[in-house]
Amino acid sequence: MTLPEKTVERLSEYRRSLDDCLEAGITHIFSHVLAGMHGITAVQVRRDLMLIGFSSDTKKGYDVRVLSGFISSILDSPEPAGIAVVGMGHLGQAIAKFFNSKGLKMRITAAFDIDPAKVGREFDGVPCYDMTRFEEMVAALDINMVVLSTPRDAAGDLVLPIINAGIGGVLNFTSRPLNFPRGIVVENFDITTLLEKVAYFVKEEEQNEGF
Amino acid sequence: MTLPEKTVERLSEYRRSLDDCLEAGITHIFSHVLAGMHGITAVQVRRDLMLIGFSSDTKKGYDVRVLSGFISSILDSPEPAGIAVVGMGHLGQAIAKFFNSKGLKMRITAAFDIDPAKVGREFDGVPCYDMTRFEEMVAALDINMVVLSTPRDAAGDLVLPIINAGIGGVLNFTSRPLNFPRGIVVENFDITTLLEKVAYFVKEEEQNEGF
Repeated sequence: MTLPEKTVERLSEYRRSLDDCLEAGITHIFSHVLAGMHGITAVQVRRDLMLIGFSSDTKKGYDVRVLSGFISSILDSPEPAGIAVVGMGHLGQAIAKFFNSKGLKMRITAAFDIDPAKVGREFDGVPCYDMTRFEEMVAALDINMVVLSTPRDAAGDLVLPIINAGIGGVLNFTSRPLNFPRGIVVENFDITTLLEKVAYFVKEEEQNEGF
Repeated sequence: MTLPEKTVERLSEYRRSLDDCLEAGITHIFSHVLAGMHGITAVQVRRDLMLIGFSSDTKKGYDVRVLSGFISSILDSPEPAGIAVVGMGHLGQAIAKFFNSKGLKMRITAAFDIDPAKVGREFDGVPCYDMTRFEEMVAALDINMVVLSTPRDAAGDLVLPIINAGIGGVLNFTSRPLNFPRGIVVENFDITTLLEKVAYFVKEEEQNEGF
């Protein structure tokens, strides 16, 4: 059974909090404590864990290590996905550095650009290849997911190479929404939209204060 | 009436596509064309526009300039929000540069850090202040929203200064979910969660292919 998107997001967040707990020496946690860390209700936490079939009958709360491992068994692939960043401007470089510094199983292992000043260099250990070699290097390095951080105008040109290379998942930061054939997972994501959304709800809050 | 989150996101995305159309000299657009640009149905587009009270009886489709302006009247504040970035590492610098290069009404006008090597410098025109001066500078520069891009471990220390400074909206990229009192709008956002989510659905697709 495929889980709802929001559940997957929360499970990813629970796991990261659980791993923080482990580092801090906390071995057990109650659902309402985990819920409080995420600003949600204990009912929501219990519903999510019921959905993945996790049960726990201890009076001490959930065993942190066991729950983190259980979530991993649901979320993670047996073999960690190879990830490439396409577009090594400021945002691409930041994403590569930010992500690889976190000690996760998934790693960004390659980058692509069209700028001769970037091709052939390494960025925090990630080699940057010319975009013309995209299909070749995706096959050679067993890359399954791409993060797109090119300028908005270049985004459309990436669709065909991604399809042809057999990429399975796309995280698109270019601010141009991209459509792919069925079978390719896309998350279109846009910092501008997020900021405009926050600004809208701030405005609404301010208007409601006046009442 | 406050709109649902997803509607606000889509309106922000519609507007950006409409502005692209205008630049390309396109003056009218049908709902199914706008829908196709975003990988959704025309019904969804029409439902969103009905929700904000936009009606159009032309046979040529929506007037692009009028619709973009109408969406702006819904989303935007009369005075554009002042935005600050807290944490000017790679991610903070990338966000400031990326966002301010877009020619939007909202602008990032200040940055904060605790690193003496960064305080006092300008990053792409954005001055960086010491975090100890946060409340003072938020008041002086009329800042209403913050983007958080500090290391995960520093995120918790930001909650009190943000409350005390009277910030209305927070876009949190630190990967530590933060809770604020009612009245402060928070969007917790995490690149790791997005990538883990894409990876999960890629895995599910691969398993379904086997059937």
